[in-house]
Order: sequence, then C-alpha cells, then structure tokens
Amino acid sequence: MTAALRLGIAGLGTVGAGVVKIVRRQAALLEARTGQRIEITAVSARDQSKDRGVNLSSYAWETDPVALAVRDDVDVFVELMGGSEGPAKLATEAALAAGKDVVTANKALLAIHGQALAEQAESAGRVIRYEAAVAGGIPVIKTLTEGLAGNEITRVMGVMNGTCNYILTRMESAGLGYNTVFDEAAALGYLEADPNLDVGGIDAGHKLAILSAIAFGTKPDFDGIEIEGIQNVTIEDIRQAADMGFRIKLLGVAQRSPRGLVQRMQPCLVPANSPLGQLEGGTNMVVIEGDAVEQVVLRGPGAGEGPTASAVLGDICDLARGLRIATFGQPAATLEDAPAASTGLPAPYYLRMALADKPGALAKVAAVLGEAGVSIDRMRQYSHDDATAPVLIVTHKTTRAALNQALDAMKTTDVVATVPVALRIEQV
Amino acid sequence: MTAALRLGIAGLGTVGAGVVKIVRRQAALLEARTGQRIEITAVSARDQSKDRGVNLSSYAWETDPVALAVRDDVDVFVELMGGSEGPAKLATEAALAAGKDVVTANKALLAIHGQALAEQAESAGRVIRYEAAVAGGIPVIKTLTEGLAGNEITRVMGVMNGTCNYILTRMESAGLGYNTVFDEAAALGYLEADPNLDVGGIDAGHKLAILSAIAFGTKPDFDGIEIEGIQNVTIEDIRQAADMGFRIKLLGVAQRSPRGLVQRMQPCLVPANSPLGQLEGGTNMVVIEGDAVEQVVLRGPGAGEGPTASAVLGDICDLARGLRIATFGQPAATLEDAPAASTGLPAPYYLRMALADKPGALAKVAAVLGEAGVSIDRMRQYSHDDATAPVLIVTHKTTRAALNQALDAMKTTDVVATVPVALRIEQV
Repeated sequence: MTAALRLGIAGLGTVGAGVVKIVRRQAALLEARTGQRIEITAVSARDQSKDRGVNLSSYAWETDPVALAVRDDVDVFVELMGGSEGPAKLATEAALAAGKDVVTANKALLAIHGQALAEQAESAGRVIRYEAAVAGGIPVIKTLTEGLAGNEITRVMGVMNGTCNYILTRMESAGLGYNTVFDEAAALGYLEADPNLDVGGIDAGHKLAILSAIAFGTKPDFDGIEIEGIQNVTIEDIRQAADMGFRIKLLGVAQRSPRGLVQRMQPCLVPANSPLGQLEGGTNMVVIEGDAVEQVVLRGPGAGEGPTASAVLGDICDLARGLRIATFGQPAATLEDAPAASTGLPAPYYLRMALADKPGALAKVAAVLGEAGVSIDRMRQYSHDDATAPVLIVTHKTTRAALNQALDAMKTTDVVATVPVALRIEQV
Repeated sequence: MTAALRLGIAGLGTVGAGVVKIVRRQAALLEARTGQRIEITAVSARDQSKDRGVNLSSYAWETDPVALAVRDDVDVFVELMGGSEGPAKLATEAALAAGKDVVTANKALLAIHGQALAEQAESAGRVIRYEAAVAGGIPVIKTLTEGLAGNEITRVMGVMNGTCNYILTRMESAGLGYNTVFDEAAALGYLEADPNLDVGGIDAGHKLAILSAIAFGTKPDFDGIEIEGIQNVTIEDIRQAADMGFRIKLLGVAQRSPRGLVQRMQPCLVPANSPLGQLEGGTNMVVIEGDAVEQVVLRGPGAGEGPTASAVLGDICDLARGLRIATFGQPAATLEDAPAASTGLPAPYYLRMALADKPGALAKVAAVLGEAGVSIDRMRQYSHDDATAPVLIVTHKTTRAALNQALDAMKTTDVVATVPVALRIEQV
C-alpha cells in the first residue's frame, strides 16, 4: 500500500471548509483515481472555536500557519488564507523551505510574488499549484499550461470577476444605476472587504497577470497591467451599447505586440451575441487563442465553496498522481521580462457624447475625428427634449493615441456639451 | 542535456501533417515548456510520393505502421490513421508490446477496444493519450480526467460532431431541408467517407463512450449507447422548436441513474439562449457537471488541422513533461461494468402532430396524454389552410415509456393525422 498524501490546510473559510468536505466525502473516489489515499493531518485558522459545519476533531490544530506549513506530517501545504503579504506569504515560503509542495487559491500572492516563489520552489525541487486562483471552478490554469502547450498563445482574455459581471448584468436587466446595484451586491455579501479589489479591477488584474505569464512565458507583471474598474460605467452606456448590439464587460486582455506585452483590465464592449457578451451574473469565462487551436472558450462558476474547492482538489489529485510541472509552465529562470507596451493595439471604439443642438455640430465632431485619422463606422443621433443631442459613434479600428488626440480637439470646439465617454470594443 | 523524445507518426493526412508542422515550427517553444527536445524520427503513410506541404525528407519512412511502431528509435507512437480495426489497432498493440507510449486521435479505437488497450498499456507500464479523439482542439479529456478529478461527475453532455451541427444550424439559418444541406455538406467535403458515421451519430457516439468511461469509472461501452442520427430532423421541427424558444442539436448525454448508466446520442431540444443552443456551425461544446464544480462548459473547434494537431501536441508535451496517467483516469482493472439503463431519466418532450380539423380533436389528444400520466406544459395550434391542424405540445417531465404509451394510444383515436414527432428536451 502506498503511503497517504498528507495535507495541511491553512485557512478554513468557505473554500477551506469545502476542501475538507470533499476530502472526507470522496475519499474512496479520490483514492481510486489517484492511486493514493489523500488525508488531512493538520489544519490552521484564527478561531478554533468557530463552527465550520465540518468535523475537524481528528486533525491537529495549529494557530500559526507557519508552524502548520513545516510539520513533519504534512506533505502538501494548502494555503487558503489569501492576501499577498503576511501569513500567506510567510507560510508559503516556509513550506517550500521545508520541502513541501504548495497548493494555493491565492491570486494576489502569485501575481505579485509569483516569480520569487517559483524560483524558490524550483530550487527546492517542489511545485506550487494554483488552479483555484483564477476563474474559480474552471480548470483554466491546466488548460493553458498543459492542454494547449503545443500552441503559441496569441491572446488570452476573460471575464474573471463574478461580482463585476453580476453588477453589470444586473444594471442592464433591472435598468438600475451603478450605485444602486453596488449597494445591492454589498448587501448580498458579494463584495470583498475592500470592494475596490472587485469593482476596481484589482482582483481580476491579479488573475490576468497569472494567465499572461503562462501564456507568454513572461514574469508575472501585475504592475504592468493597465487597470480600470467599473465604477464609471453608467446605465446610459449599458443601454446605448445594447442598442448598438454590444454588452459592456470588465474584460481582461493579454496580448503580445511588437511593442511589448499588452495587459489591460477595463470595461470593454463585446458583441452581445458572442459567448462573452452572453455571460450573465457571477459566471466567469476565459477565452484562449493560439496559433494552432484557434479559439477555446471556457465557462464556469467563478467563485463559491464547491467550485473553488473543486479546483483545489484538482491540484491535490495532480500531486497525488505525480504530475509535477513548473509554476508558470516553464522553468522560472527562463521567464522573460516583457516590457509593458506603451500603447495598446488598435481597436474600434464606442463614443458617447452630448452635442449642442445647433447646425453643423455633428459635422464639427466628424471633422475633428477625421483630422486625427479616426474614421467612423456607425453614428446615431437620438431624438431629445433638451438643448443637447445624445450622439453615439462606433469608430473603425484606431489607436488610443489617435482617439485621445481627437477627444482633446473636441474640447476646443463649442459643440461638445459633455466629456465624451470612450470605451474600447474588443473583437472577439 | 536530456535525450530527445522521439516520435514515430503513422498517418499523414490533415492531422498528421499538422503535427509535423508544429513540431518543426515550435521546436524551441516546446523544448522550453517541456524541458525536452521533441523530435520526429520516422513517419508512415500509404503513399510516400504525395505532397503533404511539409518536408518529410529527414524522417525515416515506413510503409507498414506496425514496423514504425516497434522501431528502436521511437519513444512515442503517434497513431493518426483512424479506424477501429486493421492497421491502427495492430500498430497500437504492437507499439504497447514494444514498450512505447501511444498518442492517438482515434475515437473509434478507444470507444470499441479501449478497455483491452488500457489493460495492455498498464501491464506494459505504458500510457495511451487521446485528447484529439474527442471534441478536436478542446482539452476535454484533460479537463475531465485531471482538472475535475475532485468531483463526482453527475452528467456529461455535448455537441461533438461539427458536421451535424453545421447541417442543423444551416438548415435553420437558410430555411433549407435536410437533404439539400446534406448535399451541400458533402460538396464542401465536410462528411466522412461513410456519411453515416457523421449524420448517423456514430462518430459522436464513439466520443461519448470515451467521456462516459472517464466520468463514471466504467468500461467504455459504445454498444450501450442509444444512438439516433439527424436524418429525420425536418425543417418544420427546427422552425417550430425555434418558435417555442428551443434549438435542435445532436446531443450526447451520459448520466448515472439508479437503474444504470444512461448514454444517449440523439437529436434533442435545448433552450435557444443556453450555451448549447447558441452553438453555431462546426464548433463543438462539452458540458461537464460535477457535485462540487456545478457546471463547466468548454467550447472550441471540433476538427481541422490546427485544432486537432494542438490536441495531439498537448498529449506529446504531457509525455515529455513526465505526466503519466491511467487511460481512463483510474486503473483499467478498477473500471466497472455499468449496466445500460433500460429506460432513460424523465424529461420534458416536444411533440408535433397534425390533427384532423374537427371538434374535440385537441381534447382527445389531451385526454390520451393525461391517461398515460403525461401532463402538458404548453400547447400551440397554428392557423392552417388544409384539413389538418398543426399542433405543438411541450410536456412536463415524463418518462419515455409513458410517452410511448400515449403515442400508441393516439393511433387508436381518429384525430391524429400523422405520426407525431417526439423529441426530448434536455434541461441544461
């Protein structure tokens, strides 16, 4: 009989409790599939007295996650505390130093300290797995690192924060403004303690940094991501975008360009009838494009006890089966420093503005766009009751630099009544 | 320097040539990712003189795939010939006997001889990988076997024959009948030499048998699949289904029930606004449901040189990285004989019939359904010019047995002018 694979689990919130439940409930199935018994030997959390709906009495208890991480009876340190600094980082480092493999759901830790941790793991001959860190239950890390390993990846993009997608789709379906739906989401407990992690695009940005490193063989570079949250998305833009056949999503896009690595996390328009456009509520979606495979789309629950625990268990089963792979799919020493591209790739843009209701206003705007080299694909002017006319423009592909030049020039005309809204249209 | 992983490729059609191209074009990338050089040492096909758009001159040539499979300078036998019997089977067996690992795209071989081959591979200490056998470029085998290994799978379903999905979506978009679109597809080269493999549901059935074995830990049982092709799907049903908010798909479904394993490949209705309903053309989709992950949906190209070669390369990279796993995710000896369920699980059904245009006709049909215990969710009768009235019924959940009882009883009434069409509505 093979020895058991012994887990030490730090962090017993929703996900931690979910992992404990699966290990207990599916012991026979996990052993049949991996050929190894999977056991929990020790757990750690701040409050031992709290009822977590699962029997923990047979596991050793450690108050200090670092002490858990280095226990002799732990083979795999399962880090489910979260946070890029403090106990999660210290305990992960201690586990690797003590010769343990690590399974984590910690996107911030990997996005910010991934390179150093990968180097540490490799010099110690250990592995770090983190399927649960990106897109919840969707096995996107495995798909990108292993399933599509024969591809030169050309673009990775995704909707990877369920709370933002919930807010945006709820705004549209209920016709409510951002602040109202934000308050609803807060009341439902959908937001992180620091809501800016969600609505500010930080959490999704962490995930994009991880995908980007795997896809392009580059060091994770969270600071190189251009991040814009959803706080300024208005119900007017959602409605007008819908009217033009688009939906607004907080979309992460990573792409190599001749000028460097483009990493953007920002509200974008996508065609309403595309898989991304059709994504409702808290569901996540990742789209991977490669030179051979063309396009693969993965969709699934982005959070929650079961889905996130499923991803953690996938990693644990890999370790039990002896599947071992470099943190970002190739040795850490071979990951490149990819310079962040100074400008993004050209794209069509959606523009919404209010024009003064006087003769020639539209012509002036069109002229300013033309002078900047921005050509117009479609334009709509709506009927109105007040002194300004709402106007929507969809441009042909243009650079953000050319668009900014046109937006600056518009200020000098006397016909643009409000600061125009400009949103990128991602071609999917 | 590590020794190279040496491939022997049998079959140089579209997929074989695609694999050769990637191995040549991406040599550096593949080595960076796997830590091993990947080389082709020998190839085999029927006609050496044919131009395949790729330079084969540096590889040894074998006319006999069995001779290729046992060469000393081959570590991995890559079988891309196809067919469940004959050379593919002989060469695969010979490769395993000679201590080679096998990578194959052969769904028929795995669906029909998978159990015996898995046993042979395991006793020889070798592995068989077959990502390309199911759903083209989508890494569904890896997702199911590894990524979701922590789940008790509850249902697997999918649209896995691109040709059938092309025909069905083209019928709807162009308003054309089955035979017309079938002829178009034939002219476009979309059909197998034996078209019944596609439109008869056989090819998709092979794929379902493989997924089912992994999902439920059962021996692949192609003969246990209830298979119905798309040949009898009419443009009328496609239109009427659309009118009720559904699309017709050739859908494979595998599910465990208390009465055994349910495996069906048949035209089904799915909600038009579901991911499956929105699937157009040759794209494939697989939906996997597990007790922890809830639902994961994978979408991508189901065929073609690049996507299929991408899947083959994924398997080759796994072998180069030392990832080795039992053929169906657990040792062949532990796979169960799952009895095919004698009846499927209850579902709502779509019924279309023409009723004689006389008083009380609808009441008689409703009465017959009620007597069989089939209750009606929705019913529509359309205006008409002739002596019979088209009627559509969507039932509540019922068993196929109860429905058959009602359909039999309808024949004894004098109001049903045509044999009713009955299609299952899969809840997705």
